[in-house]
Amino acid sequence: MAVTEGKKRSAGATAAKTVPAAKSRAEPSGRRRQLVDAEIYNVATELFSTKGYGSTSLQDIADAMGLSRPALYHYVRSKEDIIAKLVAEFAESRAHELAAVVANAELTATEKLRRVVIPTVRNVAEHPQRFRLLDRCENELPEELFKKHRAAKRAVRDAFVAVVTEGVAAGEFQPIDPSTTAFSLIGMCTWVAWWFTPSSPADIETTVRSIADLAVNTVTGAPTTASKAQASSPVEALQSIRRQVEALEIQLSNTQ
Amino acid sequence: MAVTEGKKRSAGATAAKTVPAAKSRAEPSGRRRQLVDAEIYNVATELFSTKGYGSTSLQDIADAMGLSRPALYHYVRSKEDIIAKLVAEFAESRAHELAAVVANAELTATEKLRRVVIPTVRNVAEHPQRFRLLDRCENELPEELFKKHRAAKRAVRDAFVAVVTEGVAAGEFQPIDPSTTAFSLIGMCTWVAWWFTPSSPADIETTVRSIADLAVNTVTGAPTTASKAQASSPVEALQSIRRQVEALEIQLSNTQ
Repeated sequence: MAVTEGKKRSAGATAAKTVPAAKSRAEPSGRRRQLVDAEIYNVATELFSTKGYGSTSLQDIADAMGLSRPALYHYVRSKEDIIAKLVAEFAESRAHELAAVVANAELTATEKLRRVVIPTVRNVAEHPQRFRLLDRCENELPEELFKKHRAAKRAVRDAFVAVVTEGVAAGEFQPIDPSTTAFSLIGMCTWVAWWFTPSSPADIETTVRSIADLAVNTVTGAPTTASKAQASSPVEALQSIRRQVEALEIQLSNTQ
Repeated sequence: MAVTEGKKRSAGATAAKTVPAAKSRAEPSGRRRQLVDAEIYNVATELFSTKGYGSTSLQDIADAMGLSRPALYHYVRSKEDIIAKLVAEFAESRAHELAAVVANAELTATEKLRRVVIPTVRNVAEHPQRFRLLDRCENELPEELFKKHRAAKRAVRDAFVAVVTEGVAAGEFQPIDPSTTAFSLIGMCTWVAWWFTPSSPADIETTVRSIADLAVNTVTGAPTTASKAQASSPVEALQSIRRQVEALEIQLSNTQ
């Protein structure tokens, strides 16, 4: 598990193995810049997670990477820059992406649900530690970033609420409470940050698809009485089938 | 939101209003002991959350409660005692409770699922900050407690996996991956710590019941192709109904 690893090894030891030495003062070029940028975010995430955002200095990050502080300045100006990029990547860009899905009139609510769940899970599964870090250090963020992060989280929630509301109204989803359902689906997606690792039995794409299927089940599933019926009474199971036939009749009369 | 409140007010200010002055050296008696105990855990949770577990001393807790340190010693001996009690309440006791549900041969898998989801959600909804604190400070826990906490979390996961595996084998649930499904359900339950507050539109019991219904939907829901059919093709919807009738026939033949 990522947390256990974080406890057992130092960020410095990790970084020393994987970061190209970058002590030159020349302007970093494309490919190397990408590599170092990625490693800065990995090392900073690990330091922020273990020492806390407030207690980590740019010097700590430079030390952990085996860079001089001036060399690090080629890549980032401050630790606020690093966390700002994490907020932008993790919350803001995702919020925009989800809003576009919600606004797409050509998709059914079920398709929209899959298209909001899939990138959310993939994003978290690819960078679980970054996601957890943002959660942990939210209260330590500079005021401006704190507001941006909260606004982006609200936008993500609003996207899920909008999709559930649309699905319920269209009769595609069960008559469920959009707010509780939205948060439950978001929990299903984001909990991936707490359990998924590259060594998990399933790979990212399998996990993403499985959770998208489960999310669709969650909203379209048989109502509780009917699902209980599978285990208890054939009469209730038949009632469930009758309700589905009625829904089908309504659907057919709407399309003719 | 609890987090925002934590940012805006000091733990001391909160405690001063609600804790009975307890400077006497007499052994604290029943009712008062309960009140002060509860407040110690609230104040400690808030301090651990804002300052970090490692940076909070017993003196800080005494100060925030307006108690002398000797007076606080009537109630707790160390901050390890406080966090140990949180681990015991939040993880260990829940793990035992869920294991008992799993072992109960008189329940169907669907009933078991409700009975593992309900106390999990209720526990988190009642004390969201305590749940988040344990997550945040897990790496700072003394080794013994760290191991206990991890073992308890694994036991909770095992309970969910066992219920899903049983439901799939019995044909009550869809053929879903038990591990991904268990973590997704746990995420649905524990995310409550991030969004539910006493001021949320729905009360705890309504939220608990709604999430239990959603959890049952998640595992019993129509497979994806069928749920899509509700929105796209009557033919697929009829196929879904046919599958349900077949399942009903199997169920009836098993009970006769």
